[in-house]
Amino acid sequence: MLSMRPSLRRRLTKGFLGARGMGAGENGHAIFARTILRYTAIHMTDDNRMEKIVSLCKRRGFIYPGSEIYGGFAGTWDFGPFGVELKNNIKQLWWRTFVQGRDDMVGLDAAILMNPKAWEASGHVSGFSDPMVEDVKTKLRYRADHVLEDNGVDVHGMTPVMMDEALKSAGIKSPDGNALSDVRQFNMMFKTEVGSQAGAISYLRPETAGGIFLNFKNVVDSLHPKLPFGIAQIGKAFRNEIAPRDFIFRLRELEQMEIEFFVRPENWRESFDEWQKIQLQFAEMIGLDMDHVHQVDIAPEDRAHYSKHSVDTEFDFPFGQKELWGLAYRTDYDLSAHAKASGAALSIADEEGKPAIVPHVIEPTFGVERSVLAVLTSAYTEDELGGEPRTYLKFNKAVAPIKAAVFPLLKNKPELVAKAREVYLMLKGQVPQIMWDDNGNIGKRYRRQDEIGTPVCITIDFDTLGDPSNSSGQASPELKDTVTIRNRDTGGQERVSIDELVMRIV
Amino acid sequence: MLSMRPSLRRRLTKGFLGARGMGAGENGHAIFARTILRYTAIHMTDDNRMEKIVSLCKRRGFIYPGSEIYGGFAGTWDFGPFGVELKNNIKQLWWRTFVQGRDDMVGLDAAILMNPKAWEASGHVSGFSDPMVEDVKTKLRYRADHVLEDNGVDVHGMTPVMMDEALKSAGIKSPDGNALSDVRQFNMMFKTEVGSQAGAISYLRPETAGGIFLNFKNVVDSLHPKLPFGIAQIGKAFRNEIAPRDFIFRLRELEQMEIEFFVRPENWRESFDEWQKIQLQFAEMIGLDMDHVHQVDIAPEDRAHYSKHSVDTEFDFPFGQKELWGLAYRTDYDLSAHAKASGAALSIADEEGKPAIVPHVIEPTFGVERSVLAVLTSAYTEDELGGEPRTYLKFNKAVAPIKAAVFPLLKNKPELVAKAREVYLMLKGQVPQIMWDDNGNIGKRYRRQDEIGTPVCITIDFDTLGDPSNSSGQASPELKDTVTIRNRDTGGQERVSIDELVMRIV
Repeated sequence: MLSMRPSLRRRLTKGFLGARGMGAGENGHAIFARTILRYTAIHMTDDNRMEKIVSLCKRRGFIYPGSEIYGGFAGTWDFGPFGVELKNNIKQLWWRTFVQGRDDMVGLDAAILMNPKAWEASGHVSGFSDPMVEDVKTKLRYRADHVLEDNGVDVHGMTPVMMDEALKSAGIKSPDGNALSDVRQFNMMFKTEVGSQAGAISYLRPETAGGIFLNFKNVVDSLHPKLPFGIAQIGKAFRNEIAPRDFIFRLRELEQMEIEFFVRPENWRESFDEWQKIQLQFAEMIGLDMDHVHQVDIAPEDRAHYSKHSVDTEFDFPFGQKELWGLAYRTDYDLSAHAKASGAALSIADEEGKPAIVPHVIEPTFGVERSVLAVLTSAYTEDELGGEPRTYLKFNKAVAPIKAAVFPLLKNKPELVAKAREVYLMLKGQVPQIMWDDNGNIGKRYRRQDEIGTPVCITIDFDTLGDPSNSSGQASPELKDTVTIRNRDTGGQERVSIDELVMRIV
Repeated sequence: MLSMRPSLRRRLTKGFLGARGMGAGENGHAIFARTILRYTAIHMTDDNRMEKIVSLCKRRGFIYPGSEIYGGFAGTWDFGPFGVELKNNIKQLWWRTFVQGRDDMVGLDAAILMNPKAWEASGHVSGFSDPMVEDVKTKLRYRADHVLEDNGVDVHGMTPVMMDEALKSAGIKSPDGNALSDVRQFNMMFKTEVGSQAGAISYLRPETAGGIFLNFKNVVDSLHPKLPFGIAQIGKAFRNEIAPRDFIFRLRELEQMEIEFFVRPENWRESFDEWQKIQLQFAEMIGLDMDHVHQVDIAPEDRAHYSKHSVDTEFDFPFGQKELWGLAYRTDYDLSAHAKASGAALSIADEEGKPAIVPHVIEPTFGVERSVLAVLTSAYTEDELGGEPRTYLKFNKAVAPIKAAVFPLLKNKPELVAKAREVYLMLKGQVPQIMWDDNGNIGKRYRRQDEIGTPVCITIDFDTLGDPSNSSGQASPELKDTVTIRNRDTGGQERVSIDELVMRIV
């Protein structure tokens, strides 16, 4: 499944300029300079970092290769017990912040399968494609731009026709040494036959945004909001990537947290700037290393077809600085296109005595898996503790899949186990993400919880019971109903009253 | 769930006995008798109930038809602002109860797109189908069993070949009066071409269970659990129903909350019985009308191909008593089939000195949309209040999409609005699902919140401000910092201190 390697190697050796080039907009150069430094710092000195994260994720139950027992299924990954809690924490934090926490936003959950007319109107049927070449013998397909880049060609600004010419004039062959087909546009939407009539085709949505635009009128009719207001959605999207790669970065099945924020046309810039700031704030909330977060203006030729202005929030992943989240000024492109294609009036009359208008749209969009990967990358830490190397995940409390683990000092002492269960159940009643662990010795448990990223471990010992005869010598009546809590990051331990525990872990 | 549910219409018109027959187990007859009575009570006297719920759901922003502006898209529905909160509440309650709330369960979130070999091994490629006929002229497709039932034929126990003979011997035509094709098996899995090689087909998963079985080994390797333990998952599944129907009951795109609970073979019955009870408890937790919840043994000929014993939890929907949730004893069918097909060892060695065993599986499965529909059906109430008819949704606090609405008595009095905002933000800091409402007069707001199902409305008035000069005559200094809370179900009002509000709404 680690088919990410070639791309990584390409980016490492051919440099970052090819990917973003001169098109980075007004801030492009400054950001680029910083990037190279940081990029060098991370990757030249530690180029196994990605493999280490992937390996930890599998070993500890965060993320498994999709359909692994059948040899995998490219572009899909499965979230294990700790991965699903981590991912849900990020999604719930997003929902609480942007939907429940704002008076100008409502939530939505639209179906993945939509009337195919929607994707004709949106421009995805004609335009959502990548340049593709096929090995004429093996029939394996490749991204034409990747093949060119692997051969040292800067593809920036190239059309498919130009790529075709470049491939041919350089006589480039497939990785298996065979001739390549002409470059053609490969539509990335998954097609499927739906329903009760043969040949009725639809698509798996390539972005969640479509479902929001189609429900604009429904939401306006139900809730009568006034501009500006937003509709937010978390859901799956699907893209038939020719070359999925980089762990959970480029997937065929992904999840998006998207907002379509509807504004008066004259206010687009103000709203855009505000959302740009808010995206940075959210990066901080989920615990990203802010030195590795960058916002980059996207050049006109690199923008999506619907966007008049775009700023990407990028992150220094182990394989380079790449898009984490997007922010686009979609104008009235979508509402007008859907209004025209469907005949529905997609406008809003929210000012008395004034005619209805078609609002413009600012779209902040957040990839769920990319957020998870950036959180994992920020959290992954190697250090030494007690003279031994260790690995831990430095999650903040908000996203940590387990907020605290509770241990009985010894698992074969019923009175310790009983007291530890009592503490465990008390905590769990208030904080659902609490884990019980009595497997192996305390040192082993610490190392395991470090790798899961649990901020604190709580040990119940004989002192907790007020049983000095069994204690390690430091017993005192004042220690009754206190426990040892051990800090993940420092390894430091302190004695805390059971009554204080909840306060310490939330 | 391969158990091709006998059609609604058959159950209603041909009688429930035909569907369940003599296989209904010890309680079959008693349940049948109750069912008919209840059905009569609801549907004969109030046969617009379903339409009223659908209409309220659209008007108030719970559930909209999928792709509505393009004329819809059969078998898909979109959840609006209140619908998504209601649905999320049910999902989160399920997750907290069954995953975070149990020491013997872990969560998972596997990809929808899986290696197609998985669906060959599971039996879905060969067996997940419905009997289908096509109108030879219009090419419209119909369920063969539905066509027969519509013509008064009891299809119980019929194979497709028998249906074909029955259709032909009776000379049955299509609804458009045209000849019908032969009956053939129509596979309900959506197919799609995936990836970088032409002709590489996969499926949208028809049940989430598959992803759990494929990750059994990964979970065992990461967490070393001991039997019995379960893996739980919430996620989308897709079924290309020939005839989607009954609002969000029979969908082409649906969501499941599924548990695969792994046990020693000799303990299956004990675990099965326990899960049967637990499903009833969960019905109560989400506020279902328990008089309308029934558990029914499924006859051998009606079970899915993998199940050795099945009990459905059924609910009296407005269109009849139908499956809400399932419980199946899947034996070692799936793990053994996947082990054989993949070559992986899907067993567990959790007892020292004893050989690894392939555990058996109890599967409690909960449909998300069916849960939502049962909650809506239980909550939908018409009564009279103050001499006027009204409609309200009697949600319990756990599932209500909005726990409380906060009103300023008048929206044009800044001091009232300011105080109301203060109360609103204080509540929202502790309970995210709080709504601000200042639109229209208080009576209108009550009616709106009744239809959304908000348990309490909180009004901030001049008494709250301690401003007797503006009050309605009953002002007194003791009323300062108190508010009026109005109970949704009784319409009764009481005066409560702001300090007590949080306690009253959670």
